[in-house]
Amino acid sequence: MKKQINVAIIGAQFMGRAHSNAWFDVNKFYDLPFEVKMKIACDINPDSEHGFAEKLGWEKFEKSWEKVVNSPEIDIIDICTPNNLHHSIAVAAAKAGKHVVCEKPLAMNSAEAKLMFETAEKAGVKHLTAFNYRRVPAISLARQIIDEGKIGKIHHFNAVYYQDWLINPNFPYVWRHDASVAGSGAHGDMNAHTVDLAHFLVGEMDSVCGDNKVFIEEREIPGTGRKGKVTADDATIFMANFTNGAIGNFIATRFATGRKNYLRLEIFGSRGSLGFNLERLNELEYYSTDDINYEQGFRTIMVTESIHPYLKKWWPAGHIIGWEHTFIHEIGDFLHAISNNSPVKPDFYDGYLCQVVLDAVSKSIARKSWIQISN
Amino acid sequence: MKKQINVAIIGAQFMGRAHSNAWFDVNKFYDLPFEVKMKIACDINPDSEHGFAEKLGWEKFEKSWEKVVNSPEIDIIDICTPNNLHHSIAVAAAKAGKHVVCEKPLAMNSAEAKLMFETAEKAGVKHLTAFNYRRVPAISLARQIIDEGKIGKIHHFNAVYYQDWLINPNFPYVWRHDASVAGSGAHGDMNAHTVDLAHFLVGEMDSVCGDNKVFIEEREIPGTGRKGKVTADDATIFMANFTNGAIGNFIATRFATGRKNYLRLEIFGSRGSLGFNLERLNELEYYSTDDINYEQGFRTIMVTESIHPYLKKWWPAGHIIGWEHTFIHEIGDFLHAISNNSPVKPDFYDGYLCQVVLDAVSKSIARKSWIQISN
Amino acid sequence: MKKQINVAIIGAQFMGRAHSNAWFDVNKFYDLPFEVKMKIACDINPDSEHGFAEKLGWEKFEKSWEKVVNSPEIDIIDICTPNNLHHSIAVAAAKAGKHVVCEKPLAMNSAEAKLMFETAEKAGVKHLTAFNYRRVPAISLARQIIDEGKIGKIHHFNAVYYQDWLINPNFPYVWRHDASVAGSGAHGDMNAHTVDLAHFLVGEMDSVCGDNKVFIEEREIPGTGRKGKVTADDATIFMANFTNGAIGNFIATRFATGRKNYLRLEIFGSRGSLGFNLERLNELEYYSTDDINYEQGFRTIMVTESIHPYLKKWWPAGHIIGWEHTFIHEIGDFLHAISNNSPVKPDFYDGYLCQVVLDAVSKSIARKSWIQISN
Amino acid sequence: MKKQINVAIIGAQFMGRAHSNAWFDVNKFYDLPFEVKMKIACDINPDSEHGFAEKLGWEKFEKSWEKVVNSPEIDIIDICTPNNLHHSIAVAAAKAGKHVVCEKPLAMNSAEAKLMFETAEKAGVKHLTAFNYRRVPAISLARQIIDEGKIGKIHHFNAVYYQDWLINPNFPYVWRHDASVAGSGAHGDMNAHTVDLAHFLVGEMDSVCGDNKVFIEEREIPGTGRKGKVTADDATIFMANFTNGAIGNFIATRFATGRKNYLRLEIFGSRGSLGFNLERLNELEYYSTDDINYEQGFRTIMVTESIHPYLKKWWPAGHIIGWEHTFIHEIGDFLHAISNNSPVKPDFYDGYLCQVVLDAVSKSIARKSWIQISN
Repeated sequence: MKKQINVAIIGAQFMGRAHSNAWFDVNKFYDLPFEVKMKIACDINPDSEHGFAEKLGWEKFEKSWEKVVNSPEIDIIDICTPNNLHHSIAVAAAKAGKHVVCEKPLAMNSAEAKLMFETAEKAGVKHLTAFNYRRVPAISLARQIIDEGKIGKIHHFNAVYYQDWLINPNFPYVWRHDASVAGSGAHGDMNAHTVDLAHFLVGEMDSVCGDNKVFIEEREIPGTGRKGKVTADDATIFMANFTNGAIGNFIATRFATGRKNYLRLEIFGSRGSLGFNLERLNELEYYSTDDINYEQGFRTIMVTESIHPYLKKWWPAGHIIGWEHTFIHEIGDFLHAISNNSPVKPDFYDGYLCQVVLDAVSKSIARKSWIQISN
Repeated sequence: MKKQINVAIIGAQFMGRAHSNAWFDVNKFYDLPFEVKMKIACDINPDSEHGFAEKLGWEKFEKSWEKVVNSPEIDIIDICTPNNLHHSIAVAAAKAGKHVVCEKPLAMNSAEAKLMFETAEKAGVKHLTAFNYRRVPAISLARQIIDEGKIGKIHHFNAVYYQDWLINPNFPYVWRHDASVAGSGAHGDMNAHTVDLAHFLVGEMDSVCGDNKVFIEEREIPGTGRKGKVTADDATIFMANFTNGAIGNFIATRFATGRKNYLRLEIFGSRGSLGFNLERLNELEYYSTDDINYEQGFRTIMVTESIHPYLKKWWPAGHIIGWEHTFIHEIGDFLHAISNNSPVKPDFYDGYLCQVVLDAVSKSIARKSWIQISN
Repeated sequence: MKKQINVAIIGAQFMGRAHSNAWFDVNKFYDLPFEVKMKIACDINPDSEHGFAEKLGWEKFEKSWEKVVNSPEIDIIDICTPNNLHHSIAVAAAKAGKHVVCEKPLAMNSAEAKLMFETAEKAGVKHLTAFNYRRVPAISLARQIIDEGKIGKIHHFNAVYYQDWLINPNFPYVWRHDASVAGSGAHGDMNAHTVDLAHFLVGEMDSVCGDNKVFIEEREIPGTGRKGKVTADDATIFMANFTNGAIGNFIATRFATGRKNYLRLEIFGSRGSLGFNLERLNELEYYSTDDINYEQGFRTIMVTESIHPYLKKWWPAGHIIGWEHTFIHEIGDFLHAISNNSPVKPDFYDGYLCQVVLDAVSKSIARKSWIQISN
Repeated sequence: MKKQINVAIIGAQFMGRAHSNAWFDVNKFYDLPFEVKMKIACDINPDSEHGFAEKLGWEKFEKSWEKVVNSPEIDIIDICTPNNLHHSIAVAAAKAGKHVVCEKPLAMNSAEAKLMFETAEKAGVKHLTAFNYRRVPAISLARQIIDEGKIGKIHHFNAVYYQDWLINPNFPYVWRHDASVAGSGAHGDMNAHTVDLAHFLVGEMDSVCGDNKVFIEEREIPGTGRKGKVTADDATIFMANFTNGAIGNFIATRFATGRKNYLRLEIFGSRGSLGFNLERLNELEYYSTDDINYEQGFRTIMVTESIHPYLKKWWPAGHIIGWEHTFIHEIGDFLHAISNNSPVKPDFYDGYLCQVVLDAVSKSIARKSWIQISN
């Protein structure tokens, strides 16, 4: 009989739904020593329950996150709230001895993130920053190919993250437009992902220099007839120098008309190259100068075979998996780490490193200059 | 409190796993009047259990399908066995008053399929042939665009279904190589899908003429040292005339080196065209002659928005779904049909119509001639 | 001082223009022992001159092809007329001792084609059927890769040739709609190319079985107010068996809405695969099972480097060439063959072999049965 | 009888060859009042002749550019030399009353470029900066769509220009590595193109901030055994703000392993978007929010139809043109401008505007700060 492990989730919006799905399904695809029990779903916004808990498999719903964090029956806290609550909840959870999963960006700034990391470490709990794209099989394979030296020394890391949900001027004012709640706009939401992938695939950065833009400065606050001033960036771009000599370029925007969730990476090395696009997340592009010269070309690897990372858990070759499955990989690996008391990545330190870069970019924009990274 | 509906699955291999996943998840994504109870998993092969039931969420495991079919607690029988058992199980299940889902191809031949349809109708139970690709959102959208007249009169329906898992001569002899168990090889397995999609998107056929091939004639029977003669086709191709004047071309092969599960459709009409590829199942290609002439081109529609079929149930735009989700759509719609006592498609009649075409192609190959379709 | 070689072209329409361009440019890209002199352009249709000769670089214009063919100053006759004149002109030219280039399809039927071949051989002149797609660099590279055994034994050759210029019902009746002038429609015009490529890349065929269609049965004859009956096929499809055990599938249509000149090949072998699309003629797709298993994928080779066939003559890597350049390759190689008195392919025998297949397909359609190929 | 116009070309390397080809062919595709006479080819490097003139159609070869520029028989001077000679030759040619075509980047810096512009204007001669990519038909179509307001207000202009010919550390030291001859490396060679396209498609810039890199610092000087220090950048990236509120991102590198001549543009506007890739130069990607919402997607327009810019001169739809054809468009339009005494773009002023931006980027890199553009 398997040991039971009790989970609570805080935040019942989009990310809460995606994580719930993973907790619900993880035992079907992972061989785990635990039986996952989905105990409590929590959201401080009373409008958020509407059958959320029942529909997604949680035993009950709570409105007080403090109560949840301190509930003795809970082993794991999964934080899916807006960014301004991450820090308080995570610190309280860790202090209460809970393992913690936290959505990205980890915090409102690097100071908060650092404290979260230190608190979790001190408490001896497992902590994970939910950079789920590391566990897209194609990204895991990219890392493997890089680690094997197959693309050699990396010269360029170019990342774009394109969405277009804000191009409509009638899109209402929401919490994500308010920098005091969201921390930032496209930058924290989208560059957080690409910066973490840069850390994962290339390494740390020395210096950054950025620019940003609010294209539509006011939006209507639903039901009020008033307009809210948009303080979170619609787009942030930046240049970077990596400590290993590579140079980086990052573009994040919610004004890329026609692109829905298009995160594209291009990594050029001395022996080969890699390309990736999140909207075709089952594919990895790879170019190798080791191929016979007249046969060289970018390959599209269908990363759906049992020889590929994570795919043994899924379906036969060519049967693609969806975006949500990355959360199952994340949760599954997290549970293994708890079970084995082994490290799991990306942890809060990775969340902190990402936050340091995001902060440096913001500072560089404010100062209109290059900023050295120090952590 | 929701009514409970009790399900049993028969067949604990690949398809059994995919269907189990859908039964497990359907309540998370569909608003249903039922609470689905996964009662019994069954496989007559004693090696198939290995935690199958427990891992995938079934309450218990059985070896006798007859027992399952006649169990009074069961409301729905889901048949995922090899093809030669479909008929016996489905007929017994319908006679026992169970609603029936059956994997494709529906039967070993059209006579069996017809009997299955007639038995289910007479029993007044709901019946579904599991042509899950009809419920790929992009395919549903294709149908919608066709129904709206947007591509006009259809001239060509060209379908290929490419896999490559048999190119390795050391791949062992399995039941799928034995025509007496599998009915046929690539033909029944793969053309079944594309023929059903042709019926769904274009209409019925008048006449067909085909060709097939076994490229590797003998394969080793695992653990015996002996070789088995391959009687099921490695590839089957055929030409077709539709009753509405369109012409069709179908290629199914397990020797398309490099293609894993590449089902590609090209549909050319008098006003526009559609294209689809199962390995990029979140995308639909569409060309319209209604566009301004110098702006005409094939569009890649990312079929991931809430305005697209089935997508309101899932994630925000650009967050792709996987192959397995089509089963959730299928099961969800089936449960709705039971609840409303409304028709559901593709039913056993569609399974029968598909079988009629498959049989006619086989006959045309045997006779080396065109065969008229009659049903 | 280079020897002068004198050329005449017969047929001043689209193909006449494309060939003229090649004669004009060939010395810039080929090192030839000849200086090409563009002596005479000829068209029996008096409306065809309109500065054709002057604009494209021909010294004079003639209306009588007989006069041109027998002109003592001419060394090479290049035939770009409608298909029904190929035979008469080519035979006369060969008998007059001229080297002959002839557009495809070589003749109205295989009997004519055979006579053309025999006459040219007997006359000891060089003869070329203008299957220019053999000299697309990517196709030449495909042949090289096949010859090296890189894709192993070929199992499938699937070719489609899609155009859409006839979908408009107001497109007028032209000579290409009249089977008595054109021989056939899509079949002779488009399948001629893909059949020749099949011969070039796979080998000869044993048997074929086809189908065809006229989608719009009457079209208006310009300036007459009357309608002409369309006797040439809008689309022809067929299945084939190659002597080496491969199976083939061919689709040619002028009703593929949205496709302009889309000739796509897919060749699947036991060790690898190749793909090609004429609208992206600088690219070759290649899949190799020799690659490390988790790195296998279809490569897109940009066939634009000096290590690729024909590319040393052109621009640096990545600077693509156009459709017309294939004619320069063809003419350049033909002139080399004349100079060295060496064989050149595809010659009239290849044109004849193609015609044999086209005829067999036509016969199979008429008889609604498979036809054995014999030549 | 057409008037004769006499041309001389200076610079007999890659660009000299490409321009020669255009002078040779232009009369075949343009209806011009001139007969082009290719009088003199010139290169100061005695090794450059090797049949260049004869092979490419020039009447004679000269080593002194001064002699050519002052030759009374010459009407047009076409400058294809390394960048450090552009200024001297162009100024001398204009003063001698010749029309001038000059390769890009126009000069070593904006001061030189301005003087070239002013001298040419004062002399009343026609002047053209050879930004040939403006005359890729797909780019011309992009401009037309933008001018029609179809993509609305532009928010983002993202350009990358990827080549990989320097990744090989054994690639020798050539003039392009020496900043004193080449002005810069990737920056002047490649960003010159994308900056001009930004000007053409979006408008002028306010401010820029860049970064650059030499990845391999020394290379062997052929035949000397010594190494030369690379002073020209291997890669230059920069961010930009346009005066109309758009933001820009530019990446140019010769270290993009696997990319040969990959210039990719992505332009996002409030109503739609455009995409382009030079390696597929016959295609334009277009997304329109005017399409019915569930049918929106990026279209691939095959820009090969007679309704598209420049295509009436070429072949039927789907028959692609090559990179070199852009020079024919450029030369043809230049000759028309001479004939009509009408303006022609991009002229030396456009060359100057581009140079101003390139200089500002270089200054921003030197100062590690943003630079305001002023011209």
